Amino acid sequence: MLLAAFEMLGLVAFAASGAFAAVWARLDVFGVVVLGLTTALGGGIIRDVLLGITPPTTLRTWPYLAVAAATALAVFAFHPVFARLRKAVLLADAVGLGVFATTGTAIALGASAPVYTACLVGRTTGIGGGALRDVLLREIPLVLRREIYALAALAGAVLVGAGHLLRLPPGPVTVVAAAVVVTVRVVALWRRWNAPVARGTGAPAE
Amino acid sequence: MLLAAFEMLGLVAFAASGAFAAVWARLDVFGVVVLGLTTALGGGIIRDVLLGITPPTTLRTWPYLAVAAATALAVFAFHPVFARLRKAVLLADAVGLGVFATTGTAIALGASAPVYTACLVGRTTGIGGGALRDVLLREIPLVLRREIYALAALAGAVLVGAGHLLRLPPGPVTVVAAAVVVTVRVVALWRRWNAPVARGTGAPAE
Amino acid sequence: MLLAAFEMLGLVAFAASGAFAAVWARLDVFGVVVLGLTTALGGGIIRDVLLGITPPTTLRTWPYLAVAAATALAVFAFHPVFARLRKAVLLADAVGLGVFATTGTAIALGASAPVYTACLVGRTTGIGGGALRDVLLREIPLVLRREIYALAALAGAVLVGAGHLLRLPPGPVTVVAAAVVVTVRVVALWRRWNAPVARGTGAPAE
Repeated sequence: MLLAAFEMLGLVAFAASGAFAAVWARLDVFGVVVLGLTTALGGGIIRDVLLGITPPTTLRTWPYLAVAAATALAVFAFHPVFARLRKAVLLADAVGLGVFATTGTAIALGASAPVYTACLVGRTTGIGGGALRDVLLREIPLVLRREIYALAALAGAVLVGAGHLLRLPPGPVTVVAAAVVVTVRVVALWRRWNAPVARGTGAPAE
Repeated sequence: MLLAAFEMLGLVAFAASGAFAAVWARLDVFGVVVLGLTTALGGGIIRDVLLGITPPTTLRTWPYLAVAAATALAVFAFHPVFARLRKAVLLADAVGLGVFATTGTAIALGASAPVYTACLVGRTTGIGGGALRDVLLREIPLVLRREIYALAALAGAVLVGAGHLLRLPPGPVTVVAAAVVVTVRVVALWRRWNAPVARGTGAPAE
Repeated sequence: MLLAAFEMLGLVAFAASGAFAAVWARLDVFGVVVLGLTTALGGGIIRDVLLGITPPTTLRTWPYLAVAAATALAVFAFHPVFARLRKAVLLADAVGLGVFATTGTAIALGASAPVYTACLVGRTTGIGGGALRDVLLREIPLVLRREIYALAALAGAVLVGAGHLLRLPPGPVTVVAAAVVVTVRVVALWRRWNAPVARGTGAPAE
């Protein structure tokens, strides 16, 4: 129950981030809805396919669909109100990342996956929706460009895995782990943390 | 039987659309065949993975493979004959969209998915092959740019779902629903129907 | 046992090719690791999803993960040493292609897939990791541009399938078939073999 409400939060956040990206790419209203839905549902579909849960839960739960579509339509209608909120969109992406990385891990543990497998499935759930969004808009995915992105998702997944090994209650652990992911991402964006790039990275002549 | 023949029609249409896109992107003969096969088989593979049908039917049915490969080779060999048929290629894409969106829904219903889940799986089957084609060629997928695309696919899927609820015979319903999809797409292309774009869509400065 | 050691070789090769591509695209250290892992594990994950093996083997086998991550980190740290080795990276990609196309076919046969289905699954396993790498970096995948790529993968898969029909021992057949793939690719690159492009390939005006 707690987890379901929590997943809804991630869904709204990712649907909004996909819809904003679509509006900025000058897509029309249907493109905005399709991209919002893809971003919101993509990670969960990848998760369920990896775990052999078919048809995927997100396609069998109509409130998820309704909420994601309504969010995308609201962004389409009211986006000028949020016009300077580029930072809010990165925050929404961070919330989606945190929620899906941690709930994905919890769901994989519930499906009896080994702990490190569950962490990888969770991390993939978290980054999957945003990666689909960026690939469809022909951008190099955020996960490859913003270093703390994949690391934050992995940290959240590992916290849920550790909580499982310590037999802590999964609901609160998931919420705390997601909060850690969001905090790490927000601080990384705010302080412009950067991971090192390799020296002399030009590609050699062919 | 009717459905199998009908799926073959969609297969030929999508294989041709993928092969033409590959020829225009100056790929060589193997690239043309690979992209034709990917476009023709991609939607059905996504459908079967979502429904837990493994290995996917399209990979287990050699006539599908042979017909799709032969279509791609024919396009490679004879494409100058069709040189001014850009409109014919958009028509082929529309036929593939209509056939796969509706048969995908019917197959999902046959696998006991709830009706709205089946509609979503069908819509994804219809748009999946073309989306793979466009992503591999680094184009923003048609489904995101042409508004009536996703809507037409969804309309066809919903018609099949409605026919199922009304206990109509699935074969004829599927064919009629596919014809509706193709008609909507063709009229939309012909009359240049456009859905609204959001106002003031420039991305805010970072 | 032989196959497991052999798969490790392909894993190292693909992880290196993904990591080099990431370094050249100026990604940071986490991007390099994520892209190395994706390239190394992507083909096997696609294979297992197509065969209904969930969660995918590569996500359940921690030595695979450790070796792929270590390879990517080594490339990040020491890549200037290899600075003029663009050819070595294409060789690594060829080794990964050969190993995964052939072991993928063998694994699909082991899962009781029909022979031609197994060949297609194997070919997809071989080209999947590299295709993911190229799409994420916004490049048209090697498989579409370098003609002998898909053909070499298919040849290796077919050799494994033929060995299965002739009841030859699968281990040695797989190694020989992989060697054939690598040889074909290397000779094709060295002699600049090209497949024909269609005549007059400009797209007609819209």
